[in-house]
Amino acid sequence: MTTIETVEKCMRHIAPHVENMDTKVTIVGSGAVGMGVATALLIQEISKNVVLVDMDGKRVAGEVLDLQHATPFLSNSQVSGGTDYTLTKNSRVCVLTAGVRQDVGESRLGLVQRNVEVFKKIIPAIVEQSPNCVLVVVTNPCDILTYVAWKISGFPPERVFGSGCDLDSARFRALLAQKFEVAPNSVHGNIIGEHGDSSVAVWSGVNIAGLFVKDIHPAIGTEEDPERFIDVHKAVIQGAYDVIKLKGYTSWAVGYTVANIVKDILDNVYAVHMLSVNVAGLYGIKESVFLSLPTILGSKGIHEIILLMLNDEEQQKLQESAKLLWDIQKDLVF
Amino acid sequence: MTTIETVEKCMRHIAPHVENMDTKVTIVGSGAVGMGVATALLIQEISKNVVLVDMDGKRVAGEVLDLQHATPFLSNSQVSGGTDYTLTKNSRVCVLTAGVRQDVGESRLGLVQRNVEVFKKIIPAIVEQSPNCVLVVVTNPCDILTYVAWKISGFPPERVFGSGCDLDSARFRALLAQKFEVAPNSVHGNIIGEHGDSSVAVWSGVNIAGLFVKDIHPAIGTEEDPERFIDVHKAVIQGAYDVIKLKGYTSWAVGYTVANIVKDILDNVYAVHMLSVNVAGLYGIKESVFLSLPTILGSKGIHEIILLMLNDEEQQKLQESAKLLWDIQKDLVF
Amino acid sequence: MTTIETVEKCMRHIAPHVENMDTKVTIVGSGAVGMGVATALLIQEISKNVVLVDMDGKRVAGEVLDLQHATPFLSNSQVSGGTDYTLTKNSRVCVLTAGVRQDVGESRLGLVQRNVEVFKKIIPAIVEQSPNCVLVVVTNPCDILTYVAWKISGFPPERVFGSGCDLDSARFRALLAQKFEVAPNSVHGNIIGEHGDSSVAVWSGVNIAGLFVKDIHPAIGTEEDPERFIDVHKAVIQGAYDVIKLKGYTSWAVGYTVANIVKDILDNVYAVHMLSVNVAGLYGIKESVFLSLPTILGSKGIHEIILLMLNDEEQQKLQESAKLLWDIQKDLVF
Amino acid sequence: MTTIETVEKCMRHIAPHVENMDTKVTIVGSGAVGMGVATALLIQEISKNVVLVDMDGKRVAGEVLDLQHATPFLSNSQVSGGTDYTLTKNSRVCVLTAGVRQDVGESRLGLVQRNVEVFKKIIPAIVEQSPNCVLVVVTNPCDILTYVAWKISGFPPERVFGSGCDLDSARFRALLAQKFEVAPNSVHGNIIGEHGDSSVAVWSGVNIAGLFVKDIHPAIGTEEDPERFIDVHKAVIQGAYDVIKLKGYTSWAVGYTVANIVKDILDNVYAVHMLSVNVAGLYGIKESVFLSLPTILGSKGIHEIILLMLNDEEQQKLQESAKLLWDIQKDLVF
Repeated sequence: MTTIETVEKCMRHIAPHVENMDTKVTIVGSGAVGMGVATALLIQEISKNVVLVDMDGKRVAGEVLDLQHATPFLSNSQVSGGTDYTLTKNSRVCVLTAGVRQDVGESRLGLVQRNVEVFKKIIPAIVEQSPNCVLVVVTNPCDILTYVAWKISGFPPERVFGSGCDLDSARFRALLAQKFEVAPNSVHGNIIGEHGDSSVAVWSGVNIAGLFVKDIHPAIGTEEDPERFIDVHKAVIQGAYDVIKLKGYTSWAVGYTVANIVKDILDNVYAVHMLSVNVAGLYGIKESVFLSLPTILGSKGIHEIILLMLNDEEQQKLQESAKLLWDIQKDLVF
Repeated sequence: MTTIETVEKCMRHIAPHVENMDTKVTIVGSGAVGMGVATALLIQEISKNVVLVDMDGKRVAGEVLDLQHATPFLSNSQVSGGTDYTLTKNSRVCVLTAGVRQDVGESRLGLVQRNVEVFKKIIPAIVEQSPNCVLVVVTNPCDILTYVAWKISGFPPERVFGSGCDLDSARFRALLAQKFEVAPNSVHGNIIGEHGDSSVAVWSGVNIAGLFVKDIHPAIGTEEDPERFIDVHKAVIQGAYDVIKLKGYTSWAVGYTVANIVKDILDNVYAVHMLSVNVAGLYGIKESVFLSLPTILGSKGIHEIILLMLNDEEQQKLQESAKLLWDIQKDLVF
Repeated sequence: MTTIETVEKCMRHIAPHVENMDTKVTIVGSGAVGMGVATALLIQEISKNVVLVDMDGKRVAGEVLDLQHATPFLSNSQVSGGTDYTLTKNSRVCVLTAGVRQDVGESRLGLVQRNVEVFKKIIPAIVEQSPNCVLVVVTNPCDILTYVAWKISGFPPERVFGSGCDLDSARFRALLAQKFEVAPNSVHGNIIGEHGDSSVAVWSGVNIAGLFVKDIHPAIGTEEDPERFIDVHKAVIQGAYDVIKLKGYTSWAVGYTVANIVKDILDNVYAVHMLSVNVAGLYGIKESVFLSLPTILGSKGIHEIILLMLNDEEQQKLQESAKLLWDIQKDLVF
Repeated sequence: MTTIETVEKCMRHIAPHVENMDTKVTIVGSGAVGMGVATALLIQEISKNVVLVDMDGKRVAGEVLDLQHATPFLSNSQVSGGTDYTLTKNSRVCVLTAGVRQDVGESRLGLVQRNVEVFKKIIPAIVEQSPNCVLVVVTNPCDILTYVAWKISGFPPERVFGSGCDLDSARFRALLAQKFEVAPNSVHGNIIGEHGDSSVAVWSGVNIAGLFVKDIHPAIGTEEDPERFIDVHKAVIQGAYDVIKLKGYTSWAVGYTVANIVKDILDNVYAVHMLSVNVAGLYGIKESVFLSLPTILGSKGIHEIILLMLNDEEQQKLQESAKLLWDIQKDLVF
C-alpha cells in the first residue's frame, strides 16, 4: 500500500528523516528473556530504537509486529527486527540472550562448546555492524560465555561483561525485603562471584539504612544461625530453578535486570552493578575468568571495579569458582 | 525461614502494616495477555498491588515468583497470586483475560457458550470479593463476553465494559503513523463497532494536527482509492491473525492497551477510549449488545459516551454487527 | 462562558463525575518550597489532584492558573487552590511549607512562637477538612514545628512528622557522589538528628556497594582526617545557607525531597526515610522532642523506626540536640 | 577537599570517565522560565546533562547548587552552569530564555532592538560551542527573535525555531478540557500564527475522539456564538497576562511546553508541535517571517510543516501578522 502522493500533499518537506542512534539497542534472541528485556526497554523509554535479531525469522517477525501495534503506548518508539544483522548497524548496546539449551545427558562442557559455536556466528556479525557497542552477555552459563564473547569480539575489557549476579542481587534484596517487611530498594545486600550455585552472599554488608544486621545478629549467613538467614541465599540460588519448574523458563526478573543495566549504560550515570568482569589479578585469581563483582557502569561499559574487602572464606570461594570456570574455559576451541 | 527476633531488634514499631488498596488490580488469567497487562501495570507503576488469579496454580505461582524477584526494578510494588479469589479482595479494577480457545470444528456459539460456563465461575467470585470494582473484559469474543459479564455480575452499566476497539484503534494509529512517517500519537483516527472482522474505521476523522486527510484525498477509505488507505483498516483487522500466525498468540499490544485503560480508570482523568459498551438506544440499535464507541473513562468506569456523527453506511454497519451479536446472545444459557 | 448545551449534545451521560481522592495532596504555602513540592508531585504523576492553599490569594491563584495551563504536559492532573481550606477536604497528605521568616534581631524562640501562632490557624483547618491525613511539616525550624503540629493536631504519632534530615541525607549522598564520581543513588550514607547545625553524619555506615569507606580509611569523619571527609558534612550543613546566599531561597532540593516522601506515603511501599519523629524513650532521651531517625514509611505514616547502633559520641550529640529543642519547646504557648 | 587517595583504594580503574553528550541541553537564562524548563527536563529524565548559562553568575550558581543537592531525586543526572559558554560545548539542544524586559514607555521596536543586541552576544557563543545544535527560541517577542536567531546563527532553517504557539495550543486544550470535563489530552485543537494577540484558533479542527464540535455547533468560534466558545481563545491570549498580573511572571506552562519540545527532539519520534518557523512561500506570505504552524519535529529539528487547509479569513489573519512582524524586522540592525 503506497500513499506517497497524499502524504506529500499534506506536508512541506524541510529536512530528511533520520534514525534514532543515541539509544539504539540490539537484542539477540527473541525468546522469553529477550522479550523481557525488549519490553522493559520500550515501556520505560530507556531505548527509543530496539532491534530484535533471531535465527527464527517467523518468531521474531511476530514479536516485532505485536510491539509495533503497541507503539502508541510505547511513546512512539521504533521497533524492528529479523534475521539480518545489518538492521543492528551502529547499536550502542548489544544484549546477547541467544543460545542452545542443555541436552539430556549433555555435559556442561558440551553445552558450553555448543554455545561457543553459536557465539562464533553471532559475535562477528555484531562486531562488524556495531564495532563500538557495549556487549552484555545474558546467555547461560553467563560467566564462561562472557569470556567467550570477550575472546571472539576482541573488544577491550570494559566493553564486554555479563549480567551475572546483578539478577542474584536483585533476588537477594527482594527476599530480604519480604523478611523485614520493607521496600526492596531500602534493603542493601549483594551477591558476587559465579552466577550460579557457587555464588557468594556478602553478609557483612547487609543493612537497612546503615543498620548492619550482622551487628544485631552475628550468626547471620552461617549454617549455625537459628534464624536461618542463610536460607535467603539458598532461595536466591534456587530461585531460577523454582521459576523454571513452575512456568518453564525465567523471563521478567532477568529481563528487567538487564534493562536496568542498559539504562545505566545509556544514561552514563556511573551506577553500581554486580557484573561479570575479568577478575585476573584480583583476590589471588591469576587466570582471565569472569566473575561478578561490584562495578561502576558508564556509557563506555565498566568504568571501575569496587574492591570489596572480603574475608578469607569469601576469597576462597571466589578462587574455587575461578578454578572451576578455568577448567572448562581452557579446553574451549575457538 | 523465620527471623522475627532479629527484625524486632532492628526496629521500634509505631503503626501496623497495611495493604495498598488504592491501586489494587486483579488480573484473571496468567497467560500471555494477562502477563502483558500485569507487567505493563507494574513497570509503569500504574498499580502498586497486582494480584494474578489462574486455575493453573503452578503457572501462576511461577509468574508471581518471577515478578517478585523483579520487585527492586518495579518500584517496590507488591505482586501476589494463586488460584484463590480471596486474594483479590477489594480490588479497584478486575481484568478478565481467562477463557477457553476455539476447538477445531467448534461453532462460534459453541465457543461462546463454553466461555459463558467459565465466566459463571469467575465472575461471582470476583463480585463477591470486590463488589465495587470496575470489570474490564478482554477475553474474546470480547463484545459478547462483556454482555455476559454484565449479565452475570449484575453490575451497573458503567462498571462493566470490554477493551474492544481500543486495541484496534491503537493498531490503526500505529499503521497510519508508518505511512505518514510521524509519531503514532500525532495521528488521530479511530476504529469503532465490533472488536473483530466487522469493525468500522471512521475515516472522516483521520487527521494530523487538524489536517483532515479526507479533505486532501476524498477517496480515502473506499475500495476505489488508488492509494489504498483502506488496506490500513484491513491490516488492523488482519493484525491479530498475523501475529498469531507468526508467534502463536498476541500479547504486547493488547496487554499495553488494557494497562492504559486501567491507568485512566485509577487516575480518574476522564480520557477517551474506544470501549465496548451497551449501545441499546443508539444509532437505531434496540437490543442490549455491546459495541465499541468513544467513551470518557473515570474511576467509576464509563462516564460518558461520545455521540459521533456517523454516516448512513457507518450506522448500517453498526446495526449489522449488533444483529450478528444479538443472534448469538439471545440463545445463551446463563 | 457556558457551553452546556453543546457539551450535552456531544455526549450521552452514563455515570456522575467524581473527584480523584486516592492521591489528593494539599500543600499549604505557595512559595518557592511549596511550588517545588507541587510541581514535582505533578510532573512525576505522584498526585493527580494537588490543592494549593495560601493566605496570599493573588499569588496562589497565579500559580494555580499557570499550572492549569500546563495540564496537557501533566498527564491531565487536576490542580486547584486558593485561600479556602474547604478545597482541601479529605486530602490523603497535607504538606506544611507556610510560615513567617526570622525578623532582624528576633530571637529563635520569638520566631518559633510566631510560627506557633501561624500553625494555630492552619492546623485546625487542615484537621477539620482531612481528619485522617498524614501531616508532613517542612517549615523551619522543622523539628520544633513538627512537635507543635503534633500537639495542635492531636494526631497519633505516626501521622505527624517532619521532612527533617531526609534533605540533609540527599545532600550528603549528592556530595559524596561527586567525590567518588559515582551515581548519588549508589553511595549510601545518612544524616540524622536535628535538621540544622547540630545534625549527625553516621560515618560508620557510609558505603559504596557494601564497601565501607571507614574500613579503608578509619579517620573518616574526624577533624584529624587529612582527606577531610568531614568537610562533606560541613558542606551539607552549609548547603542551605549557600543556596540562600546565592539565589535568595532554597526550593528544588527540598521540594523534591518532600515529593519523594509523599510518593512513598501514597505508594505504601515501606521505604526508608530520615524523618523527624518523636524520639522520647530512644537513645536516653526522655522528653517528647522530634529528631530525624531512619524510619519506614507507609500509607498511614511512620510504620517503624530503625534502631541504629550509635556510638557514645553520636548518642551524646542527639541528647544535646534534644535538650536544645526542649528548652525552646517547654516555653511555647499553645 | 580532596580524597583521591581513599577513592583510589576503593576501586580498580578500567576505563576513563566521560561526559554524557547524547542528551546535553543548554538553557540560556536561569530565570523562572529557564528553571521551569530545566527542572522539567531533569525530573522527567529527558536530559541527563543540563547546563544553565546566565549573565548573573550568583543567581545561576545558586540554581545549580540547589539542583545538584537534588540529584538523588533526579535519577543521578548531571547539572552544571555559570557565565561561561565553554560549559555548553557540543550541546544537542540550546534553549534561549534570556532577554531584557520592556521598559516603561519603550516601543516594541525598541525592545526588539535591545534584545537583538543581547542575542548578538549569546548566539555566536552558542554557535561556536555547539555548531550542530538545535536552537529553540523562547524569549519574547518569540516570532521576531526566532528570525533574529536564525539570521545571527547562520543555521539552516530546520535548526532554528520558536516555541511559539505550542504553549497557546496547550492552554487552548486545557481550557477546552475544562468546558467538556474531559482529559486535556483527549481534546484536540490548535492555535497557529503569531505567539501573541493576533494568534489564530483553528476552530474547524476542534474535536473529541473525532467528533467535530463545529458539526454539532456551527457557530463555534464566531462572535455570534451564544455559547461563546470564542472566549476560550480570548482566555488563551489573555492567559499570560493573567498569570503575570497574579504572580508576576509565567513559568510552569511555558517551561513544560519547552521541555516537551526538547524531549521530542532528543527522542526523534517525529511528533507534531505548533512551532514558529519561516513561513515564506506559504499562505501567500512572501517575506521571511516566523509564525507558528503545525510541524513534525525530529532530532535535526523541523522535519516537515503540515499544510493545514485554512479558510480565507484564517489566511488573511496570518498575512496580517506577517506584515506586522516584517514591518518591525525590516528595520532591525544586525
